Amino acid sequence: MIVVMKPDASKADVKHMVERIEALGLKAHVIVGTERTVIAAVGDDRKTHKESLESGPGVSEVMPILAPYKVASLELKREPTTVTAGSLVVGGGTIGVIAGPCSVESEEQILTAAKAVKAAGATALRGGAFKPRTSPYSFQGLKEDGLKMLATARDATGLAVVTEVVASEDVDLVARYADVLQVGARNMQNYRLLEAVGSTDRPVLLKRGPSATIEELLLAAEYILNAGNPNVMLCERGIRTFESHTRFTLPLATVVYLHNKTHLPVVVDPSHGTGHTYLVPQMAAASVAAGADGLILEVHPDPENALSDGYQSLTPKQFADTMQLCRKVAVALDKKM
Amino acid sequence: MIVVMKPDASKADVKHMVERIEALGLKAHVIVGTERTVIAAVGDDRKTHKESLESGPGVSEVMPILAPYKVASLELKREPTTVTAGSLVVGGGTIGVIAGPCSVESEEQILTAAKAVKAAGATALRGGAFKPRTSPYSFQGLKEDGLKMLATARDATGLAVVTEVVASEDVDLVARYADVLQVGARNMQNYRLLEAVGSTDRPVLLKRGPSATIEELLLAAEYILNAGNPNVMLCERGIRTFESHTRFTLPLATVVYLHNKTHLPVVVDPSHGTGHTYLVPQMAAASVAAGADGLILEVHPDPENALSDGYQSLTPKQFADTMQLCRKVAVALDKKM
Amino acid sequence: MIVVMKPDASKADVKHMVERIEALGLKAHVIVGTERTVIAAVGDDRKTHKESLESGPGVSEVMPILAPYKVASLELKREPTTVTAGSLVVGGGTIGVIAGPCSVESEEQILTAAKAVKAAGATALRGGAFKPRTSPYSFQGLKEDGLKMLATARDATGLAVVTEVVASEDVDLVARYADVLQVGARNMQNYRLLEAVGSTDRPVLLKRGPSATIEELLLAAEYILNAGNPNVMLCERGIRTFESHTRFTLPLATVVYLHNKTHLPVVVDPSHGTGHTYLVPQMAAASVAAGADGLILEVHPDPENALSDGYQSLTPKQFADTMQLCRKVAVALDKKM
Amino acid sequence: MIVVMKPDASKADVKHMVERIEALGLKAHVIVGTERTVIAAVGDDRKTHKESLESGPGVSEVMPILAPYKVASLELKREPTTVTAGSLVVGGGTIGVIAGPCSVESEEQILTAAKAVKAAGATALRGGAFKPRTSPYSFQGLKEDGLKMLATARDATGLAVVTEVVASEDVDLVARYADVLQVGARNMQNYRLLEAVGSTDRPVLLKRGPSATIEELLLAAEYILNAGNPNVMLCERGIRTFESHTRFTLPLATVVYLHNKTHLPVVVDPSHGTGHTYLVPQMAAASVAAGADGLILEVHPDPENALSDGYQSLTPKQFADTMQLCRKVAVALDKKM
Repeated sequence: MIVVMKPDASKADVKHMVERIEALGLKAHVIVGTERTVIAAVGDDRKTHKESLESGPGVSEVMPILAPYKVASLELKREPTTVTAGSLVVGGGTIGVIAGPCSVESEEQILTAAKAVKAAGATALRGGAFKPRTSPYSFQGLKEDGLKMLATARDATGLAVVTEVVASEDVDLVARYADVLQVGARNMQNYRLLEAVGSTDRPVLLKRGPSATIEELLLAAEYILNAGNPNVMLCERGIRTFESHTRFTLPLATVVYLHNKTHLPVVVDPSHGTGHTYLVPQMAAASVAAGADGLILEVHPDPENALSDGYQSLTPKQFADTMQLCRKVAVALDKKM
Repeated sequence: MIVVMKPDASKADVKHMVERIEALGLKAHVIVGTERTVIAAVGDDRKTHKESLESGPGVSEVMPILAPYKVASLELKREPTTVTAGSLVVGGGTIGVIAGPCSVESEEQILTAAKAVKAAGATALRGGAFKPRTSPYSFQGLKEDGLKMLATARDATGLAVVTEVVASEDVDLVARYADVLQVGARNMQNYRLLEAVGSTDRPVLLKRGPSATIEELLLAAEYILNAGNPNVMLCERGIRTFESHTRFTLPLATVVYLHNKTHLPVVVDPSHGTGHTYLVPQMAAASVAAGADGLILEVHPDPENALSDGYQSLTPKQFADTMQLCRKVAVALDKKM
Repeated sequence: MIVVMKPDASKADVKHMVERIEALGLKAHVIVGTERTVIAAVGDDRKTHKESLESGPGVSEVMPILAPYKVASLELKREPTTVTAGSLVVGGGTIGVIAGPCSVESEEQILTAAKAVKAAGATALRGGAFKPRTSPYSFQGLKEDGLKMLATARDATGLAVVTEVVASEDVDLVARYADVLQVGARNMQNYRLLEAVGSTDRPVLLKRGPSATIEELLLAAEYILNAGNPNVMLCERGIRTFESHTRFTLPLATVVYLHNKTHLPVVVDPSHGTGHTYLVPQMAAASVAAGADGLILEVHPDPENALSDGYQSLTPKQFADTMQLCRKVAVALDKKM
Repeated sequence: MIVVMKPDASKADVKHMVERIEALGLKAHVIVGTERTVIAAVGDDRKTHKESLESGPGVSEVMPILAPYKVASLELKREPTTVTAGSLVVGGGTIGVIAGPCSVESEEQILTAAKAVKAAGATALRGGAFKPRTSPYSFQGLKEDGLKMLATARDATGLAVVTEVVASEDVDLVARYADVLQVGARNMQNYRLLEAVGSTDRPVLLKRGPSATIEELLLAAEYILNAGNPNVMLCERGIRTFESHTRFTLPLATVVYLHNKTHLPVVVDPSHGTGHTYLVPQMAAASVAAGADGLILEVHPDPENALSDGYQSLTPKQFADTMQLCRKVAVALDKKM
């Protein structure tokens, strides 16, 4: 349910209502809007406490949230959420650009990449230290050493660091080094991990699983929001279909649809979404035109010798060209990029 | 095979080679380029006649065409093809916009629609007279009466008419009224129909089947090209995937991929590709950013009372707004629209 | 609507009601059941004539048909339909087995195949004379010559002939030679063709399109039934999914689901449904266990040199083994095969 | 690589070779066959040590493993693996039947279910205590209390307990109560969890993710095998496709295909694979005909009031009928069930 407070409700009223909601065994999420405050009361759907809450001090009305996701829903919060993490701003008319290699391979590699993407206009650095790999015999990432290299690259460039965390037991470690915690597509429904990143103060980039419905994606976000972390970015990175000329099929209607359902910002990953370098620049531009709040792009100083995902990585030069192309579209649509 | 003629080869040389190719039981398609002429020799792949052709007068070299589609292939013709039909130009930096209702319902309806889309900048009128419908009990179109109403609308507005033909036996009739023959998604592999439209002098808009691979689409185009009609526009209109929040999934990477494989222009249909009016404007803009050479959009004077596809039709006002949005992107990318 | 006649309604009553239904602009399909006769009145759904029909002579009740398909619906006819065509019986506890090569290649080839499949227990011969091929440069079938060879093979073996028709203008020709007209997957929504085969007295084998929903399949069948031909067999031949280790994904739940929705018999094609010879025998057995009323299998005397589909064709020996395997399952489930 | 030992190689030879393999930085998995012993040497693929191993004592030959999965591959071990866990036997001609409710709801519920499925012939009990749920607001399982109830049901019936584990940190706890650890579809690529269950001595039931390729499934199994646990059962539970009349599409060709690629036994889940009770019995029979080594079925004493998955659960009576149907097929195919 949504408890809508009156415009003149006091802080004490809000506090009182939060306590009442919690006394009912529900969780309270306070959303302070520009005009008034609302409180989401979520938990067991089967009982309704509408009447008992309606009579509370400062309460304007109590409404059900029709969507299965509650805190993520536009019904609860109409203003788009802007997520900020150091140099990275995603949403509110600003398009964040997260760029860098698939894996951190060495300090030199990540520093070179970081400087190159910074020079071309990226606002955050990506790079994997814990790599979930399909085969147990593939390179699994440099782990904490990789995190340290990312921190060094941040020191050198000022770019916020976005990196993946693959298990709840690693969340504290990764959060010590990272500005944004990425939950990968394979882990979109790893609920223990979602709860763990939801308990940190780090913004989260949540990637859609390749066969997840949008409702499943929003309910995965809800696990994070419900654990107390309001800074969630949703990421479309392609779905699995019968198409084989691309690695995944990138459905950009996701961006427009999500903007009609949730206040959370939406990032697009054209690198995984297409799987081929030569398709990335125009699909990045199309993402911007579709209204994406951010892009995440694989850029490697030397794609041919990358330890992972070389076939879909841009060179620094290709990335700079892609940025130019995207900026033209962004400017035409009055977006900051 | 491709028989590449020398820059100074004479018309007689070309004629001679065409005869030699045909004497081998192959079909010859002459492509006159800006710098030189090539001849595609297509037919039974199993025998090669490379040596016997290489020695011909004016021949520079003979190369295999590696793609399974031949005349459609970029290997054969590197310059993008521009298709022109009356007021409609698609390709070569100009984005054609085909707009109108799903079905022709009455003269008044189609005239109103035609004037509205013309006023907003459309360069062709769409409208179905022969409607392939999933149920035998649904409205099947006004047939020849509908064609006549389309012709009336063309007379009134100057807009080229794009309309669907569903059977080879109707091709002559439809070609009498239409400027462009549309082959619908359900008929993409109706080879008899493809051969029939390939035998006319009307440009063809060929829609991708909802589970067709790109190779299947290009081979369907090849049926038309091989029958002698070089004016084929390919149309992405969405594929069938597990997603259910949209009617189909619209994979815009198709546009970029096709531009890397074929010289034929690519049109996008965001109306069928999404199935919901509110998703159309931004997906149209994204199509332009992805490099589409044309758009086909459902516009109805009164979507709520449309006999078909009302839920995905734009009102004239929404169409005008969509045009404005798309033009911003087109201008930013130096395209004419 | 369904007009259910009283058990003691006379033929004159039925005739009277048919005329009344037709006078309303609807089509009447009379279904004579073991206990009573019902009349389907189909056409424009928007007006209901319930009251005016209920008062008719011999009428017990008038009910809406809730499914979008009407004549195909189990609501209308509860007894399963058995389709018989010469030696072939499909349904009613008998499993028909249609076997033979993808294409008719020569008289010797089709005769050898026909004798081999007959010896192993097949009850009909398949073989394509008109071949819809993805590429215009592939072997397109022997056309009428192929039909004549099929007729010769029927004369020699007594097997009913099942062969594909690809265009409405060929229906008369093919019906002169064939016992069963096959509508292929690519043509499942070629409505003109469906109407044409619906106007013949030949049973029809209707294959599901690779991305057709079950409702679309049943509505395609409805086109045939509505044109007056009650002998339709539905065929599951695999759908297009993300799986690439099989050519298509064969969803056997289709069989069980269809038996809950329609009285029409259901045939399975494990050859196209898997695309690999070694997967066919056990998937044929699984089809029988799922309740299939028939099987259609590709068998070639010499698969390695087949002009089409060799990789999914059984040798005569493999077919005989497959028959033995399937018969064990059929016998265990009290089916005739 | 596979190091194939000579038939007369001594235990000391095998031990020596294991040490040599490990000294190369590879992992050694010893497979003792009926005729001879082979040792899988797996790890970094990029360097080959063929020559240095070929000269070892008792070595017959050294061959590469071509498949990306190594220990799971039929190249390494040709005899099918039989997995045994208490009352449950899966493989080697015996079809194991795991039945029970989706969630453990109470001691009474699980005891009733256990007795009913035991009486009808099930050989193991399923029941979820840790439930991964799409929504954070849905019932999440009784956790350790649920595990205790499962142990009580095992004591009462002698049935082995199969239950899901959702996080690596829970593996020890769940392994204390369960006979088989289930890894659910959502966690198929939760590699930390795979490694954790691979470190226990409990057999593992690994469910295919709804959009996982077969290669990804086998590589997930490889994580478990490579961690030292040879007792892995693969489970097909349906894939996500465009079909919406079933919850998932159940592709039974998976069973046949896997039997051609791996020695691991294959279990089918027709409950999740169809999502509707009325489709389960015949799809269970079809699974047996396709060669499944086991079935896992949802059975609830009172499906209408189940806390989860009631729409796809069998009643005890329906389960008994399903068992009878499946046994007919199993007997016909000389399988024990």
